[in-house]
Amino acid sequence: MSSALDSESRIQDHDHLALKLWLRLLTCTNMVEGALRQNLRQSFDSTLPRFDLMAQLDRHPEKLTMGELSRLMMVSGGNVTGLVRQLEEEGLVSRVPLKTDRRTWQVGLTAKGKRHFDEMAGEHEGWIAELFAGMDHDQQEALMDALAALKQSVRKTRKAAE
Amino acid sequence: MSSALDSESRIQDHDHLALKLWLRLLTCTNMVEGALRQNLRQSFDSTLPRFDLMAQLDRHPEKLTMGELSRLMMVSGGNVTGLVRQLEEEGLVSRVPLKTDRRTWQVGLTAKGKRHFDEMAGEHEGWIAELFAGMDHDQQEALMDALAALKQSVRKTRKAAE
Repeated sequence: MSSALDSESRIQDHDHLALKLWLRLLTCTNMVEGALRQNLRQSFDSTLPRFDLMAQLDRHPEKLTMGELSRLMMVSGGNVTGLVRQLEEEGLVSRVPLKTDRRTWQVGLTAKGKRHFDEMAGEHEGWIAELFAGMDHDQQEALMDALAALKQSVRKTRKAAE
Repeated sequence: MSSALDSESRIQDHDHLALKLWLRLLTCTNMVEGALRQNLRQSFDSTLPRFDLMAQLDRHPEKLTMGELSRLMMVSGGNVTGLVRQLEEEGLVSRVPLKTDRRTWQVGLTAKGKRHFDEMAGEHEGWIAELFAGMDHDQQEALMDALAALKQSVRKTRKAAE
């Protein structure tokens, strides 16, 4: 039985090039995410959702409501609530009521959380550099361009469907 | 506030090309998955995890145990159990005890499930073709090659880390 990461092995002979391309894209994303997940666990006893949540807070120093966080992370409100509670107990994030609506809470990184995130983000960038190190500069540029073309193609299709 | 799909907007000026590349890859994967998720909901009142589970069963007509399914789908056993129960209630999959160990259950598509999956898979391939249609054949081939290089790079890095 093939590995879970290898969606490509689902492909039969006569499938369309686009489908092959999509499964290869998915395989690559899963492989990189798998490596990041493993590294976060081994180096920081942490997870990708925790890292992603802290990355969003780092990017929004003006703080975010739970709804905004949930939308940015594309996960359900329940999951974000659990993650925030966990990080709050560890002193990495804090919640304050919104000035204009005291029933709504805003979440931000604490100083400790910011230090912890900066350390993780530095390692994270190093892991990515390692995972992509087998590609030379030209190959990386070619992938950048090809993905830009894909992004544009998907945007156009979705716009046409609206 | 930027869209959840656009991980790329996280990028600051001096970041490494590899990190830019990874966030663009993630953005593309999320955009395609978002479109597929929406299409599955609108056309079949279904979800990606349901589709992926049925795709695994379609690929393994010899049937799969819950553990094998869970491993192939990279989700927790609890999630797979819930999905299988749901699909079983709709008559799309069935469970039979393993001959060599009657405490272990094997899951397979029913005839109705197989027909339903074939219909979804046909549509799914059409959606992918549409989403990639803005890329010409050469661009698609270039993306295939670039992703092959990435796959090899990630494999090499992970092997070195073992």
